[in-house]
Amino acid sequence: MVESLFRHDGRRADEMRPVAISRSVSLYAEGSALIEWGNTRVLCTASVEDKVPPFLKGSGRGWVTAEYAMLPRSTQTRTPRDSVKGIGGRSHEIQRLIGRSMRSVVDLAALGEKTIWVDCDVLQADGGTRTASITGAFVAVVDALRNLRERQAMKRLPLAGLVAAASAGQVDGAVFLDLDYAEDSRADVDFNVVMTQDGKFVEVQGTGEGGPFSRGSLEEMLDLAERGIRRLIDLQEKCLGLTEEEKSGIPR
Amino acid sequence: MVESLFRHDGRRADEMRPVAISRSVSLYAEGSALIEWGNTRVLCTASVEDKVPPFLKGSGRGWVTAEYAMLPRSTQTRTPRDSVKGIGGRSHEIQRLIGRSMRSVVDLAALGEKTIWVDCDVLQADGGTRTASITGAFVAVVDALRNLRERQAMKRLPLAGLVAAASAGQVDGAVFLDLDYAEDSRADVDFNVVMTQDGKFVEVQGTGEGGPFSRGSLEEMLDLAERGIRRLIDLQEKCLGLTEEEKSGIPR
Amino acid sequence: MVESLFRHDGRRADEMRPVAISRSVSLYAEGSALIEWGNTRVLCTASVEDKVPPFLKGSGRGWVTAEYAMLPRSTQTRTPRDSVKGIGGRSHEIQRLIGRSMRSVVDLAALGEKTIWVDCDVLQADGGTRTASITGAFVAVVDALRNLRERQAMKRLPLAGLVAAASAGQVDGAVFLDLDYAEDSRADVDFNVVMTQDGKFVEVQGTGEGGPFSRGSLEEMLDLAERGIRRLIDLQEKCLGLTEEEKSGIPR
Amino acid sequence: MVESLFRHDGRRADEMRPVAISRSVSLYAEGSALIEWGNTRVLCTASVEDKVPPFLKGSGRGWVTAEYAMLPRSTQTRTPRDSVKGIGGRSHEIQRLIGRSMRSVVDLAALGEKTIWVDCDVLQADGGTRTASITGAFVAVVDALRNLRERQAMKRLPLAGLVAAASAGQVDGAVFLDLDYAEDSRADVDFNVVMTQDGKFVEVQGTGEGGPFSRGSLEEMLDLAERGIRRLIDLQEKCLGLTEEEKSGIPR
Amino acid sequence: MVESLFRHDGRRADEMRPVAISRSVSLYAEGSALIEWGNTRVLCTASVEDKVPPFLKGSGRGWVTAEYAMLPRSTQTRTPRDSVKGIGGRSHEIQRLIGRSMRSVVDLAALGEKTIWVDCDVLQADGGTRTASITGAFVAVVDALRNLRERQAMKRLPLAGLVAAASAGQVDGAVFLDLDYAEDSRADVDFNVVMTQDGKFVEVQGTGEGGPFSRGSLEEMLDLAERGIRRLIDLQEKCLGLTEEEKSGIPR
Amino acid sequence: MVESLFRHDGRRADEMRPVAISRSVSLYAEGSALIEWGNTRVLCTASVEDKVPPFLKGSGRGWVTAEYAMLPRSTQTRTPRDSVKGIGGRSHEIQRLIGRSMRSVVDLAALGEKTIWVDCDVLQADGGTRTASITGAFVAVVDALRNLRERQAMKRLPLAGLVAAASAGQVDGAVFLDLDYAEDSRADVDFNVVMTQDGKFVEVQGTGEGGPFSRGSLEEMLDLAERGIRRLIDLQEKCLGLTEEEKSGIPR
Repeated sequence: MVESLFRHDGRRADEMRPVAISRSVSLYAEGSALIEWGNTRVLCTASVEDKVPPFLKGSGRGWVTAEYAMLPRSTQTRTPRDSVKGIGGRSHEIQRLIGRSMRSVVDLAALGEKTIWVDCDVLQADGGTRTASITGAFVAVVDALRNLRERQAMKRLPLAGLVAAASAGQVDGAVFLDLDYAEDSRADVDFNVVMTQDGKFVEVQGTGEGGPFSRGSLEEMLDLAERGIRRLIDLQEKCLGLTEEEKSGIPR
Repeated sequence: MVESLFRHDGRRADEMRPVAISRSVSLYAEGSALIEWGNTRVLCTASVEDKVPPFLKGSGRGWVTAEYAMLPRSTQTRTPRDSVKGIGGRSHEIQRLIGRSMRSVVDLAALGEKTIWVDCDVLQADGGTRTASITGAFVAVVDALRNLRERQAMKRLPLAGLVAAASAGQVDGAVFLDLDYAEDSRADVDFNVVMTQDGKFVEVQGTGEGGPFSRGSLEEMLDLAERGIRRLIDLQEKCLGLTEEEKSGIPR
Repeated sequence: MVESLFRHDGRRADEMRPVAISRSVSLYAEGSALIEWGNTRVLCTASVEDKVPPFLKGSGRGWVTAEYAMLPRSTQTRTPRDSVKGIGGRSHEIQRLIGRSMRSVVDLAALGEKTIWVDCDVLQADGGTRTASITGAFVAVVDALRNLRERQAMKRLPLAGLVAAASAGQVDGAVFLDLDYAEDSRADVDFNVVMTQDGKFVEVQGTGEGGPFSRGSLEEMLDLAERGIRRLIDLQEKCLGLTEEEKSGIPR
Repeated sequence: MVESLFRHDGRRADEMRPVAISRSVSLYAEGSALIEWGNTRVLCTASVEDKVPPFLKGSGRGWVTAEYAMLPRSTQTRTPRDSVKGIGGRSHEIQRLIGRSMRSVVDLAALGEKTIWVDCDVLQADGGTRTASITGAFVAVVDALRNLRERQAMKRLPLAGLVAAASAGQVDGAVFLDLDYAEDSRADVDFNVVMTQDGKFVEVQGTGEGGPFSRGSLEEMLDLAERGIRRLIDLQEKCLGLTEEEKSGIPR
Repeated sequence: MVESLFRHDGRRADEMRPVAISRSVSLYAEGSALIEWGNTRVLCTASVEDKVPPFLKGSGRGWVTAEYAMLPRSTQTRTPRDSVKGIGGRSHEIQRLIGRSMRSVVDLAALGEKTIWVDCDVLQADGGTRTASITGAFVAVVDALRNLRERQAMKRLPLAGLVAAASAGQVDGAVFLDLDYAEDSRADVDFNVVMTQDGKFVEVQGTGEGGPFSRGSLEEMLDLAERGIRRLIDLQEKCLGLTEEEKSGIPR
Repeated sequence: MVESLFRHDGRRADEMRPVAISRSVSLYAEGSALIEWGNTRVLCTASVEDKVPPFLKGSGRGWVTAEYAMLPRSTQTRTPRDSVKGIGGRSHEIQRLIGRSMRSVVDLAALGEKTIWVDCDVLQADGGTRTASITGAFVAVVDALRNLRERQAMKRLPLAGLVAAASAGQVDGAVFLDLDYAEDSRADVDFNVVMTQDGKFVEVQGTGEGGPFSRGSLEEMLDLAERGIRRLIDLQEKCLGLTEEEKSGIPR
């Protein structure tokens, strides 16, 4: 394990930046959360629509879809809007990932023919916007499901698990948890992991930006990310105040 | 003047909703402001770019341009993103208005060949997003000008005035200052005024949504809007802590 | 009032350019008008469609919508087509204004579930294309309503008023009625007014292009525009040959 | 030859509809023409731009390009604008044809590095809009070339020929010159011919809409079209008042 | 007739390049063909969809439509994809032509309310991609019709004819059959003919790229193209192994 | 390890489908390969362009970028073209992955300021199109680099490694190498691995489509993919006939 003195902000190799999640930050959305993760800030809302995409019509099952965008000045230099330059490949990739992550823990059969639209809008970006989006979106989705439970007099929350995401990476040969932008922009490897409360993976994505990486590094990054995600899931649970009943269907 | 009992939230006819402006809410933007106006919340950033549009190249003069967008769930029901449905006529209209308003108080000759990009992103919409955008954008722009003054060692702030905006409207025959969404959606007339610190108009826009309106109503709405804008300019001035020197070139 | 010697074409400050409206200039459209206003020429058609936008389905009410475009060589130098460069903000703004203006005088309840599509295509532009569009479009719309009255055996014309538009502006401190392009391009203030036959406003839009303007100027420009619009409404009435019966529901 | 009694408007099989061309109908365009061809009306402008497309830069040669569009209510039922629905295949095909036709008679080497933009906007469509566009565009182009000759003090008009176009078709087995919309919409074969003053073809396009056609019909339609085009070229020549000098480089 | 020594690849003036057609080259498409025509290679598929465009709903008739595209490196230098630069005018023109050609020989009434989607994707382009597309598409369409006949237990193949296409052109005054890219790029005239098995024309398109052409040349090019198409139709027939029964409704 | 009897085509759990790569399948591209992988077929071309994207100008370094598309009837039912429906998120994701994979083994500094455009066009899709694209693209890229070496008289091939990709997945609890479409469409987990000749990872992407997966499964899938990729790299090497000299800079 590499010494913390390598990190420009003094963090240990296995130390995340401080993360805070505020709930109900939107007057209108059925669920919403503002996640502040170091200097990264993402506003996540979950909106319920009473219909499903064509391929699910008549199936009795629901759907969760996501859209991701960055405000133009969320970045160090201003980025043109998607409405002007089109949605780029990176945003497409991230919003598909957020959607898959949420679907992995929502009980779509119990949801019924409804769609939950998740919107992750990055207010400020300092690395890790996709992991922050997933972690925050989950909180918004749970509140939207609670809202539905009330309105629809559902017996139980259509929730099958908890999910959060963290990144790890390799910088100058050292393996670190939770890269910020300064680290990410010179990282050799970028690793994003989406995991559920029982330590299972929803998604594992590792990219050797600066050259291929060994299986050993891979294992090390997986270990770090796992550790980070366990802490995030604790944070989500506390922040949401999940009751025993709400957690009853969720394996530990 | 109509009795306050007509307004659903108990305001007097000439009473604005509470307005608060926070500065420097973005880590990266040269200037930024979050304006909270009742339940309406707009994030305004001002970014400096070291070039100008083609029609100004070589002129020695600068430019201010603006973009306006609403987050998908800033509204009561989710609105599709501009990147998906295209920028609509309403957004085009508003961002052109914001740009003109800012240009009316920035000393473009003193600015030199630079462009200030103003981004107004509506986080939550409860009526009056265009007036909130203009009022907040001004604060962001002044901080961006201050930033430029430092970096460029300018002698003085290239600022020629202060500008803010307020709406008035006619609802069931009564004339009110600062309509919220509930009032606006059933208003007969919608009036938006952009005014400078010396009581001059940058823009006057009145629309008879529910039928034509008389010259008498027009005068009454102008009076109300003027009163509101004077209070907003006071607020901007306090919030910005404008020094005597900074205000030296501005007529009162 | 400023002396006429200030105007480059010898007009008095309160003098409009000559305006002529020809009806039934299209073989197919239910209503059509060619308006020639100085050197500005706009072809206006009104087309009837037997359905309404989704938000009006089942309401029993009709709708009027407008599209505005300039031919590429209607301008001094060729302008790229909207189909190539996209519909710009200015066109969006103008076509929304035309639509609102027409809806203010059509009795949408009496119209029933029909849409009137107004198309204003600028053949030649010498300033004032939006006011010419509105003034000409009204004539086309009335003929389309007459056509509908025949076909649908309506008892009366679903017409609630007459509407026209004029501009005024401030050039080098002087206030003028009806700016042409040469005046408009160096105007300090540009003021557009849409008014009905009983002197009420549908829309008032004033922009300080070259700097803010005083309330006094505003009042003066309103007066001038009003005077111009009264003459235009007289012209429309004559041109249309409105019968007493057709005018029966219209307040004076 | 088929009897004239077959044609719904009483024309003989080899009779064109009346054609009139008005020049200089635009205040701004270097050349312009309004062609009225039966009920079909097309406004043609020719604009000169002082640059060429990238593939001709430095070649010393000029270019002619064309754009074609129909006003929304030029047709019996309103057609959505290209700016809304995109430029369709038919418009693409026609504007490419107009461009090729004009290039076949302009002396591009003598023109020098300039582009002539031809715009053909259909004000009213009753069949034959492409042939009317080509025939009218030629008149606009010649006037634009004359304008250039003055401005550039060219020795002679960079004109290598005259060009016009006519259609023929086969309806219920009979072969007719110049189909109008009523004939065209039930034609078995649609034949468009673009020809120069010396009886040579620039373009021949025949389509068996209602089934394949024989070589015999093809020859008959070519003959008819040729006859029509000769009359159109006479008309263009008169309308333009081409001098002997201007025609000096043109083979007969 | 011009000597073969004029052709860069040693072909006689009336000689086509070698053409080979392979059937059933796609695992999924109802009909498919790979046509290799000299160095030009086009993959043609025919897909059956159980619905028709809106204008045919309820008519009992079917439709055939086509799309044409070139792979980015089918050309000598890489061409940007249509998905990046938009479908250009040339592709629009060609795919409309392919669709018309196929519709001229499919018995649309016997087909019933189905659409056959023809896709022609150019894998390698060496001139003549439109004639290769039409010639190959016909083979794919026949196999798709056979597939339908099985599935729908149709009595007979809904086929009314055979269709193929060839080009001819004029290069340096000489008239040649079947231009390859090297010839085409310096041709004065480019002539494309689509013809059926009984020597009738579906489409005739001749363009004087390098200057107008005489009626004599036109006749010569028609003759050459006819000869080429007769050979192609023989090839199609053999390749498809059309039975006497399948050919029963087709006039010779 | 799960018994082979679970696989619908009789393969063992760790058995790939047959893979064949043909080189130089394009007349024009600097490098090209057709990869046939079971029923999946992808045409890969590598084109050299003598410039780099803006962010590399003046850096002396080259770039590799990729585009991926499916022919409309490469799929079981016809898929609309990207040029009609836009490039979707899935294609964006895949083409970014191909680009990153190629860049990981090309020596961009030695390449110099050139761009290699990789085009992967799926002719037939039966699962695994992204792994086939990467594996085939590598062969095309090497031939393009050889072409450059000749033309530029480079001392050595700017190649730093070999790269290939394989998928593994979990179906009904069993872990398999190289899923075909039938398996993939009901897989619980889909795992894609891009690896170099020395067993290092360029990219690892695992998605729990049908629910989260354990670390144990992850390790098993990594092992399988590794085994598959080693065989693919052997195949590439043989197919390319890499000389000792060409392999000199490549670590084993």
